[in-house]
Amino acid sequence: MAPAGAKRNILERLDAGEIVIGDGGFVFALEKRGYVKAGPWTPEAAAEHPEAVRQLHREFLRAGSNVMQTFTFYASDDKLENRGNAQRFTGAQINEAACDLAREVANEGDAMVAGGVSQTPSYLSCKGEAEVKGIFKRQLNVFVKKNVDFMIAEYFEHVEEAEWAVQVLKTSGKPVCASLCIGPDGDLNGVSPGDCAVRLVKAGANIVGINCHFDPMTCVKTVKMMKEGVERAGLKAHYMVQPLAYHTPDCNCQGFIDLPEFPFGLEPRILTRWDMHKYAREAFNVGIRFIGGCCGFEPYHIRAVAEELATERGYLPTASDKHGNWGAGLEMHTKPWVRARARRDYWEKLKPASGRPKCPSMSTPDSWGVTKGHADLMQHKEATSQDELKPLFEKAKASH
Amino acid sequence: MAPAGAKRNILERLDAGEIVIGDGGFVFALEKRGYVKAGPWTPEAAAEHPEAVRQLHREFLRAGSNVMQTFTFYASDDKLENRGNAQRFTGAQINEAACDLAREVANEGDAMVAGGVSQTPSYLSCKGEAEVKGIFKRQLNVFVKKNVDFMIAEYFEHVEEAEWAVQVLKTSGKPVCASLCIGPDGDLNGVSPGDCAVRLVKAGANIVGINCHFDPMTCVKTVKMMKEGVERAGLKAHYMVQPLAYHTPDCNCQGFIDLPEFPFGLEPRILTRWDMHKYAREAFNVGIRFIGGCCGFEPYHIRAVAEELATERGYLPTASDKHGNWGAGLEMHTKPWVRARARRDYWEKLKPASGRPKCPSMSTPDSWGVTKGHADLMQHKEATSQDELKPLFEKAKASH
Amino acid sequence: MAPAGAKRNILERLDAGEIVIGDGGFVFALEKRGYVKAGPWTPEAAAEHPEAVRQLHREFLRAGSNVMQTFTFYASDDKLENRGNAQRFTGAQINEAACDLAREVANEGDAMVAGGVSQTPSYLSCKGEAEVKGIFKRQLNVFVKKNVDFMIAEYFEHVEEAEWAVQVLKTSGKPVCASLCIGPDGDLNGVSPGDCAVRLVKAGANIVGINCHFDPMTCVKTVKMMKEGVERAGLKAHYMVQPLAYHTPDCNCQGFIDLPEFPFGLEPRILTRWDMHKYAREAFNVGIRFIGGCCGFEPYHIRAVAEELATERGYLPTASDKHGNWGAGLEMHTKPWVRARARRDYWEKLKPASGRPKCPSMSTPDSWGVTKGHADLMQHKEATSQDELKPLFEKAKASH
Amino acid sequence: MAPAGAKRNILERLDAGEIVIGDGGFVFALEKRGYVKAGPWTPEAAAEHPEAVRQLHREFLRAGSNVMQTFTFYASDDKLENRGNAQRFTGAQINEAACDLAREVANEGDAMVAGGVSQTPSYLSCKGEAEVKGIFKRQLNVFVKKNVDFMIAEYFEHVEEAEWAVQVLKTSGKPVCASLCIGPDGDLNGVSPGDCAVRLVKAGANIVGINCHFDPMTCVKTVKMMKEGVERAGLKAHYMVQPLAYHTPDCNCQGFIDLPEFPFGLEPRILTRWDMHKYAREAFNVGIRFIGGCCGFEPYHIRAVAEELATERGYLPTASDKHGNWGAGLEMHTKPWVRARARRDYWEKLKPASGRPKCPSMSTPDSWGVTKGHADLMQHKEATSQDELKPLFEKAKASH
Repeated sequence: MAPAGAKRNILERLDAGEIVIGDGGFVFALEKRGYVKAGPWTPEAAAEHPEAVRQLHREFLRAGSNVMQTFTFYASDDKLENRGNAQRFTGAQINEAACDLAREVANEGDAMVAGGVSQTPSYLSCKGEAEVKGIFKRQLNVFVKKNVDFMIAEYFEHVEEAEWAVQVLKTSGKPVCASLCIGPDGDLNGVSPGDCAVRLVKAGANIVGINCHFDPMTCVKTVKMMKEGVERAGLKAHYMVQPLAYHTPDCNCQGFIDLPEFPFGLEPRILTRWDMHKYAREAFNVGIRFIGGCCGFEPYHIRAVAEELATERGYLPTASDKHGNWGAGLEMHTKPWVRARARRDYWEKLKPASGRPKCPSMSTPDSWGVTKGHADLMQHKEATSQDELKPLFEKAKASH
Repeated sequence: MAPAGAKRNILERLDAGEIVIGDGGFVFALEKRGYVKAGPWTPEAAAEHPEAVRQLHREFLRAGSNVMQTFTFYASDDKLENRGNAQRFTGAQINEAACDLAREVANEGDAMVAGGVSQTPSYLSCKGEAEVKGIFKRQLNVFVKKNVDFMIAEYFEHVEEAEWAVQVLKTSGKPVCASLCIGPDGDLNGVSPGDCAVRLVKAGANIVGINCHFDPMTCVKTVKMMKEGVERAGLKAHYMVQPLAYHTPDCNCQGFIDLPEFPFGLEPRILTRWDMHKYAREAFNVGIRFIGGCCGFEPYHIRAVAEELATERGYLPTASDKHGNWGAGLEMHTKPWVRARARRDYWEKLKPASGRPKCPSMSTPDSWGVTKGHADLMQHKEATSQDELKPLFEKAKASH
Repeated sequence: MAPAGAKRNILERLDAGEIVIGDGGFVFALEKRGYVKAGPWTPEAAAEHPEAVRQLHREFLRAGSNVMQTFTFYASDDKLENRGNAQRFTGAQINEAACDLAREVANEGDAMVAGGVSQTPSYLSCKGEAEVKGIFKRQLNVFVKKNVDFMIAEYFEHVEEAEWAVQVLKTSGKPVCASLCIGPDGDLNGVSPGDCAVRLVKAGANIVGINCHFDPMTCVKTVKMMKEGVERAGLKAHYMVQPLAYHTPDCNCQGFIDLPEFPFGLEPRILTRWDMHKYAREAFNVGIRFIGGCCGFEPYHIRAVAEELATERGYLPTASDKHGNWGAGLEMHTKPWVRARARRDYWEKLKPASGRPKCPSMSTPDSWGVTKGHADLMQHKEATSQDELKPLFEKAKASH
Repeated sequence: MAPAGAKRNILERLDAGEIVIGDGGFVFALEKRGYVKAGPWTPEAAAEHPEAVRQLHREFLRAGSNVMQTFTFYASDDKLENRGNAQRFTGAQINEAACDLAREVANEGDAMVAGGVSQTPSYLSCKGEAEVKGIFKRQLNVFVKKNVDFMIAEYFEHVEEAEWAVQVLKTSGKPVCASLCIGPDGDLNGVSPGDCAVRLVKAGANIVGINCHFDPMTCVKTVKMMKEGVERAGLKAHYMVQPLAYHTPDCNCQGFIDLPEFPFGLEPRILTRWDMHKYAREAFNVGIRFIGGCCGFEPYHIRAVAEELATERGYLPTASDKHGNWGAGLEMHTKPWVRARARRDYWEKLKPASGRPKCPSMSTPDSWGVTKGHADLMQHKEATSQDELKPLFEKAKASH
């Protein structure tokens, strides 16, 4: 149930104090559905299997999303070339197909289309500004041709590359979002979230924030740091957040990529819908108004965000008809003790068991030793070795 | 990649020693996608949102399923009446739409259509044999009209009702599967798995087994007990298993329904694809040849089953193109430590963390006290109360 | 605060329906205090460091123990010879010193002295009945000379050796307890707890039961099985239980010895005093009247047993003066939220956190694969190997 | 086996670069043995049950302690008055008895006697400097009379009170240690560890550091911050650490007192001896040379510290004769798989299971809401209530 009236631009909405709900991460959701290959993570399914991509868009729309992000993650030419597979379609074909699918479904409800670009292999392999910008420009051409409503530069680990992207995207005249995949420790060069945000706003971004790599509460905290930085600098911006749907209390600055469970053993970390209520409320409280999701989000996660913020938005998403207030549908369950769970209090307090008694609750990130931990260790004498001690033990025994 | 040749009946396949792979549970998957309401769990989406149901069928087909089960769970007239919502469609409309969708997608690959019936409110409210059989008969009429390939009576907690269902379904002349949702302790009247199986075979079932309510290893163990019962009785049957995709080491005889996490907090219990490899191998080793899934299964879970048994079947599912051998796609990941995970050994040994340090690993089922635990407690003197002890503590202190 | 009156024999007490509280395990407690070596576990400290052994006896007496068990575990000649260290004292010296210490402290309160023998290396290396009995006889000579009040044959994994021990101990004319270190699966030859108990009673044991190797609830359950066996056989006996103070939900038939944490990583499994209340009540409810402890028990654990059963016994142990009713001393704590914990309800409901987020809650016993698990695995085809699959993946990719 | 030669003062030792090993916490150890009451935590046992206190001193001496701390925790007059029990002995009697016991055992080996004072109820109830100093002075008189070797002011939550204590203790002319029970967030007034340390050194403390309230790694980290503060200020000091033997990853600024498990449910958090090796090595690496323990430490924990640092110290503690190199005594165990554990590698890698599958790994501190968490929450709109949402759900359903 979307509100009546002509569609407005994202900046009009945010300026009016509205909440804009994003969608979830397509690569992970479609990997589970069998259309994306983990590793390359490229979006050729937009061209190969449009029905699967269209259906996922539609589910997020029903769940309350106001943004249909084109399924163009990692669809830059240099990425598609490097990755080998899905050679049957050119980058342009994939990007265009993705735009058409997003537009088709957006038109079914109250949603805008956002064109997306993300970090490039070229930058990581130290190509210069002109070359990297050229890559973004080629993608932008498609988005301009397809007339998307606004642009998102997302999933950048280095603020410099994100600035370049923003500068290119600004040339389209469309509103531009800039979203980094960093945590409270800042980008991979150690630039703090506050400083990153200031640089992005100065580069022309209208909306800044965080996506992917960390769990919702960590991402919200990082956006809060960005907001404080922007305000300290006397600048103005809107804020967005699109976190993981995985609990990651144990990851380091590189985020969930470093967790041993990435990407095929993350199941026990998946957030429940009730975790999403807390996330949505916290994001709102911090002042973020573009609230969505990234890897791990399924349609019911976005629906939970929309339900938590239904009073503020003034309406519930269509798919809430298949849910009810805090799971009220359970009142119709056959078992009486399940009917007794049809209440908010029950789900808010529940601490769900893992069902995995031989698994721990936290992991040690893989790259830990490689980064700061290792250096710390190297400068210290290691623990005393067994061989050193043996004669002392002999002595202790003898003297006894 | 399905093998060439005309489609054969499920009994022809099983008699020939082939492995038949089932699909996953539709109600849970579609609940997450926003098309099924938890509580009533009724399948009106088959008529309301055919595109969503079709897409899920297609994903399971691509993942390797040989069986498209009609999305007719809880679609008996008495259930649909009781549940209130989705009144826009009659039971017949829903059942017919579900048959059409299953057939449409089955024709896209090497899959059969199975019509499904499940336990009825009428039986649970103590209606007699004639009335309950009448309900099954009305559903069967649709399946006969739509000419499904075989029938499955599934999700029965009482073997008696399952026998009645089998007797009705047999009248169609089609092969009949009978699948109970019980564990090693037997049905809710305490009939052992072995005895249940014997009764079902005698009632006419060609294939017997277990679905839902328990995790894969528990279900396989229960089917093994059924098989031993059938063999001890000198009978012959084929065996099927379609378990949960949730770890449930802590549930009692009622299965996951009693776990405090049911149905909205089960996320940490979801099996990984690697857990599915172990399940598929164990099911095969026990002699089960119809191997599928129920609640919690997503297409990638079924794909893992198909990949584990690819050598025995002689082919991989289509969707394995988006996976690679034990996650080999990771060889193309950008981070070197993630590339290092592109090997079976890594995933087989991983014990995934829950990311939830304030949650336990096992729960106490809700109905525990209600059933056997409570009775045990009642016959004993409870622990000594504080008031009884106070004078003794005073004395101990004084005598000190 | 012991009751007035002359000391009575253990059988007089049990026949009168009294509860007899045992002590805790000396080898583990003294290992932590620095007087016993893990591995050989021999009790030379009785002669070497009598003050340490005396002090531990005294703490258990204050905690409520009615039995001072001589610290003669593994003090048979063959064991002491094999173990090499502590050669400064003969077996007789150690056994005699242990008797003197137990008697000295027993005389300070309402406690009896129990002489103890345990399983021998000789039996395990297949020596015959005469030789093994000779070893028990030599130990018994010391206990008779020192005039202990009764005898305990404990920590036997094979009922046959325990029968031999009972037969020897009976020649002294003193009451004899027989305690096996087995679980519900029976002794290491597979003799069931019920059958074991019957054989021990027929051999002459007055009191039969279980000690060590499993957690309290498992041991109580096993004694219950023994009791049912004895009653089914129309025999009569008293029952004892002296379990571990470690939670062992994950061990197999060999008990905690097989857990990877044995013996130097068991800390997270230590029972709280509140766990001990539940144990004491459960043991009492089952009909056990000689209730004590083994490895892991500290004096405060025995005190908790005595406090739980204080009403039935009619008095509290001396050391309760330093505890108060369900930790009532906390009423004098400086922090208000700690004062709020001075109540039974708080501690009964608490689920204590491990503080170890990278550790699991259950382990896989070391010998698992060696025993039944391994055999099961060997008869099955192992999971499909990577090499078998590669051509199929190539094919799937090509056909895409 | 201690090295030969006349005993030297603690400052001579530390100035010479030696490692001084402390003892463990007496109140917790004696509470478990039945001689201290949790809540008041007062040390009347020094006078009431000297044999128990002497034995614990002796065990720590054997384990490698060079410091016998007088058992005078909370033995200030105001504390003893407030606490009610143990009125049979005056404060002076208790303090004197504690000095005599410490000296008696110190003379049995290479240990010094340290007199101890700790924070007072008077300070917490806002008494002035003169009154609080008067209390410390009265305790000091006893320590001077008994001629202890040096003084420790420990367990202070407010640096101001610790400064006052140091100023009083300095009047004795003896070396003075000042140890706070704070974490990295500083004292309860928010003074940072670095600033606290500077103030204590300026007040006259020769050795500064941390004891109690947090786990070893947190305490070492806090001392490191103190050391950095002292060095930044251009001052000089020695450093000490005497942490808990409990894992406390989840506590807030008030330390383990706030954990729901304090003080009767801490068992699963107890450090293993192998955790102690890591602690000792880390403390040494950071530059701390007075390394001991506080609540939760048992003699085997101190022995592990002494074994880890045996090469640096040049000798092993006496009690290592009952241990062997990294548990080498296990080579004499009867079961082969236990013998296989007699190696450092095994124990270093072990992640011990809790044996408590229904317990979490971390807790929520009790006072959380009371302190900073609560304030944060109060300023935000709480999550949307059910009643607000109901009309919207009705609308969503109708519009469907």
